Amino acid sequence: MTRQISVNSRTYQWPSAPTIIVCVDGCEQEYINQAILADKAPFLASLQWIGTVLAGDCVVPSFTNPNNLSIVTGAPPSVHGICGNFFFDKETQAEVLMNDVQYLRAPTILAEMARAGGRVAVVTAKDKLRSLLGHRLEGICFSAEKADQVTRGQHGIEQVVERVGMPVPSVYSAELSEFVFAAGLSILREERPDLMYLSTTDYVQHKHAPGTPEANAFYAMMDGYLQRLHDEGAVLALTADHGMNAKTDAIGRPNVVYLQDRLDAKFGAQCARVILPITDPYVVHHGALGSFATVYLRDGDDDARQREVMAFITAIGGVEAVLTRAQASERFELPPDRIGELVVLGERLTAIGSAAANHDLSGLTVPLRSHGGLSEQKVPLIFNRKLAGIDDTRRLRNFDVIDLALNHLA
Amino acid sequence: MTRQISVNSRTYQWPSAPTIIVCVDGCEQEYINQAILADKAPFLASLQWIGTVLAGDCVVPSFTNPNNLSIVTGAPPSVHGICGNFFFDKETQAEVLMNDVQYLRAPTILAEMARAGGRVAVVTAKDKLRSLLGHRLEGICFSAEKADQVTRGQHGIEQVVERVGMPVPSVYSAELSEFVFAAGLSILREERPDLMYLSTTDYVQHKHAPGTPEANAFYAMMDGYLQRLHDEGAVLALTADHGMNAKTDAIGRPNVVYLQDRLDAKFGAQCARVILPITDPYVVHHGALGSFATVYLRDGDDDARQREVMAFITAIGGVEAVLTRAQASERFELPPDRIGELVVLGERLTAIGSAAANHDLSGLTVPLRSHGGLSEQKVPLIFNRKLAGIDDTRRLRNFDVIDLALNHLA
Repeated sequence: MTRQISVNSRTYQWPSAPTIIVCVDGCEQEYINQAILADKAPFLASLQWIGTVLAGDCVVPSFTNPNNLSIVTGAPPSVHGICGNFFFDKETQAEVLMNDVQYLRAPTILAEMARAGGRVAVVTAKDKLRSLLGHRLEGICFSAEKADQVTRGQHGIEQVVERVGMPVPSVYSAELSEFVFAAGLSILREERPDLMYLSTTDYVQHKHAPGTPEANAFYAMMDGYLQRLHDEGAVLALTADHGMNAKTDAIGRPNVVYLQDRLDAKFGAQCARVILPITDPYVVHHGALGSFATVYLRDGDDDARQREVMAFITAIGGVEAVLTRAQASERFELPPDRIGELVVLGERLTAIGSAAANHDLSGLTVPLRSHGGLSEQKVPLIFNRKLAGIDDTRRLRNFDVIDLALNHLA
Repeated sequence: MTRQISVNSRTYQWPSAPTIIVCVDGCEQEYINQAILADKAPFLASLQWIGTVLAGDCVVPSFTNPNNLSIVTGAPPSVHGICGNFFFDKETQAEVLMNDVQYLRAPTILAEMARAGGRVAVVTAKDKLRSLLGHRLEGICFSAEKADQVTRGQHGIEQVVERVGMPVPSVYSAELSEFVFAAGLSILREERPDLMYLSTTDYVQHKHAPGTPEANAFYAMMDGYLQRLHDEGAVLALTADHGMNAKTDAIGRPNVVYLQDRLDAKFGAQCARVILPITDPYVVHHGALGSFATVYLRDGDDDARQREVMAFITAIGGVEAVLTRAQASERFELPPDRIGELVVLGERLTAIGSAAANHDLSGLTVPLRSHGGLSEQKVPLIFNRKLAGIDDTRRLRNFDVIDLALNHLA
């Protein structure tokens, strides 16, 4: 009998070889394309011949947490519940951080595979993702950011820094992601996990455009590690949580619609509350500015008021679309209880802010690059094996990556 | 009394100094941004302090001819009639090239200023634009491509190659655009025109992404000429006909929806005809692939059939939107008699083709970059003077550039 597991209504074949899912944070496809053109990524270039190169759609909002959780649950946020870093609790009138496992509504494929007897490992760049990704996981799970604090009891591994031979990097660095790959390679060689999930940080992508020397250097580093993981016999599956685009004018100044200020000026203070679910404790490199916002209206507001607010926001230059909660929940498969009455998407080159006074842009030492909207939805789906049996008409998602890697090897 | 002219229902103040309108073909704003970051464009960088940096929307289809004609008429294609390189004449069942002046329905600001006694000069990169831009123009008008064939009688100037001191470049080269600037500088110094229009070619932008060495070298070249034109006392106004985006996957393979093939397979051959108005005699660098197509149905087709075809196309992955003739004419200000029953827009990373057999991609030596859709609509509007009196809520267009340069100097 074929060994398999079922998680969130999908069935996964047991890995036939160590299988490594790599989520490259902010990997707009053009980064890979340009690195290949600059001869910096020979291994990735070879995958069109020896492997499979596809593209898929990530979850909107095109943010890190919703997409990482979708990838490891194989399901959209309507199933797993994590649709951003924040939602607004109208009862307590408080903005609630969604980084805690109490908000996760679905089991992960990682935890279920471990529960079925598989060896599972997770390495993230930043620690903020570790607890969500490691929920109920019996296995290895730690972050590069806190790699010097791992214990076997809590993280399933010890002495990582010594094993990797790299000091713990700054949380704002390319090296934080390099540490993830170096640790992954060590774990592949020593522990030989059945399934491993590696998740990088988009520090480089927020700062540097595709094809620039810094971006190419980052992808060259990654290409080298992917080659070594491949040489160790692993099945590799690479995708991204979201893409990345400039959000500036021709001279590098940010294009920002400060939506809370606009709504306050039009309808009065506290008539509507703008929540930016990109906001988190690490916003230095993007100033909490992305292309997705959700708006909470007052409880007494009727449909006419909602339509009035929608029409006002729709007419603002740089706004791509405004959806009602019902429309956004259906189109983007979001949990309706964790978004506001409206969802606002910025155009490719425009970020949505709340009130200007709430954004500290002093950390933006280079022109703003960010994500969150529809323009960052297309991401790579790249494998070091030939795949088979994929329906041509199927709309691929980044959260199909484990299904493709386990169920569709040729 | 203030001297002014009126053209296409707009009034323009007479130039107070030689005024140069530069249309940088395919100038996605990120090209300038990245060139500045790489310290290759100090003059453009300085314009945020000594001049004015804005952005505006170009005409959709975001192609060269419709936008160049909009810029020089100050009006959308619904007024000037040029909405692409081709339309389909149902009576003769022939695809008609729209490069001829007989299809131009409005006078240009250039010709009207010359008629009012102004000295006017036009230099284009490719010759295909010269006759449209020079329609009824008494002044200088020639292309870099045929600069060795100019005569005073026909082009208002002679011995251009000798004056510029550069050989006539290949039509597929960065130097073709450099010749435009070099000729413009010579004309500014010698003839001191009241109004000059310089229009480059997007050969570099089709081949090289923003921030790459080749792109930065092109913008460095341009920056040097803009500095010299500025030093000669000219008022400079720079915009673009359209932006530019990769139309590929992560590994550089083109994402193309071959719409004619899809329609033939679904509805039968010759049920619908796909016209790609980007097609022209110079398609080597983009294989006639852009993100805009128009579809002509058969005369007998009723509304139900049209809805059926629309629904079918809308469901194709990579298609951003499908509009009826009436919707497209209104939204994009297009002449309804020169588009088909449907207009189809590709997503940012997707080009729309006709039948695969009609596209020769052998000239695509680098990954496809192109334009035509909504994703290439945002373009720079940059001036070497402070502007004043612009309504904050006004949606700026690239074809406002002459209005801004002549009517809004501070």
